[in-house]
Amino acid sequence: MEKAVVLLSGGLDSATTLAIACNRGYECHAFSVDYGQRHRSELEAAKKLARSLGASDHKTIHIDLSAFGGSALVDKFSPVPAGGTDTGIPVTYVPARNTIMLSLALAWAEVLKSRDIFIGVNAVDYSGYPDCRPEYIAAFEQMANLATKAAIEGARLRIHAPLMEMSKAQIIRQGVVLGLDYSLTVSCYQADEAGRACGVCDSCRIRRAGFESADVPDVTRYRSWVRL
Amino acid sequence: MEKAVVLLSGGLDSATTLAIACNRGYECHAFSVDYGQRHRSELEAAKKLARSLGASDHKTIHIDLSAFGGSALVDKFSPVPAGGTDTGIPVTYVPARNTIMLSLALAWAEVLKSRDIFIGVNAVDYSGYPDCRPEYIAAFEQMANLATKAAIEGARLRIHAPLMEMSKAQIIRQGVVLGLDYSLTVSCYQADEAGRACGVCDSCRIRRAGFESADVPDVTRYRSWVRL
Repeated sequence: MEKAVVLLSGGLDSATTLAIACNRGYECHAFSVDYGQRHRSELEAAKKLARSLGASDHKTIHIDLSAFGGSALVDKFSPVPAGGTDTGIPVTYVPARNTIMLSLALAWAEVLKSRDIFIGVNAVDYSGYPDCRPEYIAAFEQMANLATKAAIEGARLRIHAPLMEMSKAQIIRQGVVLGLDYSLTVSCYQADEAGRACGVCDSCRIRRAGFESADVPDVTRYRSWVRL
Repeated sequence: MEKAVVLLSGGLDSATTLAIACNRGYECHAFSVDYGQRHRSELEAAKKLARSLGASDHKTIHIDLSAFGGSALVDKFSPVPAGGTDTGIPVTYVPARNTIMLSLALAWAEVLKSRDIFIGVNAVDYSGYPDCRPEYIAAFEQMANLATKAAIEGARLRIHAPLMEMSKAQIIRQGVVLGLDYSLTVSCYQADEAGRACGVCDSCRIRRAGFESADVPDVTRYRSWVRL
C-alpha cells in the first residue's frame, strides 16, 4: 500500500480530500497544523474525521503564526469577515499558509517514504487566495522535487489537489458518495468550543450555499440561536 | 530603506549572511527557527549576533520537527556524526528543513512588506544537502512568487543566497572584512550550554579547516578539554 500525507484542517474541503485519498487506496497519514488560528474546534474535528475515515494515523504540529501578525484568522482582535467574498483577496488570508503546511507535509512525507501529498485547495470557490491556484501547486511540486533526499534519489513526489476544479456542490456530492459524515466537519470562522457554526460568517455562507446547490441536506451543527 | 528577512541559525554561515545583508543597506529582520534541534545554544548565539550586527529585530519561531523523527539533528538519541563528510548526504540532514524555514520567512516577509529573503546556504562545503543547491533556491523563489498576495500584486520576491558559491575560507574572510565577531557564532553539533564547541564533530572540523585555509585566527570557543 502506498502511503500518502493528507493535510486535514477539519473543514469540509480537507475532509473530502481525505475521503478521496483513502478511496484511491492510499494508507493515509492525516496531518493538521495548529497555526494559532481562532477556530480551534477545527482541530478537534480533524481528530474525529481522521478516525472516522480510517486514516492510519493523525499528527498535529503546533506553530504560532500569530507571532507574525498580518491576517484576520491569526489576529485575535480583528473582526471576522461577514460581508461577502467577491472583493479580491479575503482579509482572512494567512500569509504563506499553504506553503508552510505543504513544507511540513513534505518533511513528514520524506520520513514516511511517501511520495504523495494531498491538499484540499480549490480554485473555484476561493479564487482570491494566490496559494490555491493550479500554477502555485505545480510550482510547489517542482520545488519539492529538488528539495529532498528522496527526490534526488529518484522518488518523484506528487502534490495532489483533487478538489482544484470542483465547485462546492461537486465537492459535497463527492463526499456524500464516499460516505463522509459532514456533521463532523467545521468550516465556521467563529465556531464555538463544540464546533457549532455561527451561520453568518463568509465561510458559513459559502458552505450553506454549497449544500443547497448540491441538493444535499445541510447537516452542519449550528448554534441554537441561528435562524437560517 | 528596503526591508529584508534574514534566516539566522547562530552558526557561521548565517551570521556572515546577516553581515552581508546589513552591509548591502537593508533594514534586516533576523529570523530563527527552533525546530527541536539539540544545539540550542545556537539560538542564544543568534540573539547576540542579531544585536551585534545591528539587525532591526529578531524573532524566533518554535516548531517541533522531532515529532516527525528522521534525522540525527532532531533525534535526541542518534549519535552525532564525527566520521567525515564525503559520503553523500549527511545523516544530519533534516527533512525539508530549508523549505520549512524559507516558508516561514516568506510569511514574515509578506507581513513586513519585504521583497528580500536572505539564506546562508552554500553549495561548496555542504554539497550533500539537496536544499542547498542553486536550482533548489531558484525553484523556491519561483514558487514563492506565485504563493503570496504581495507577489500577485506585483512585488517580485527574491531569495538571496550570497554564500552559494563561496568556500568556507572565503566566507570567513568576508565576515572578517565586515567586522563580524565569529566568537559569537556556534557551529558545533553538540555545543554545551555556554555555546562552547566539542572540536571533534563534522561541523567543528569543517569550521576549523575553514579558519586554517582562510589564514584567520580561529576564535571559536572550545571546551576546556579540547586539544586541537
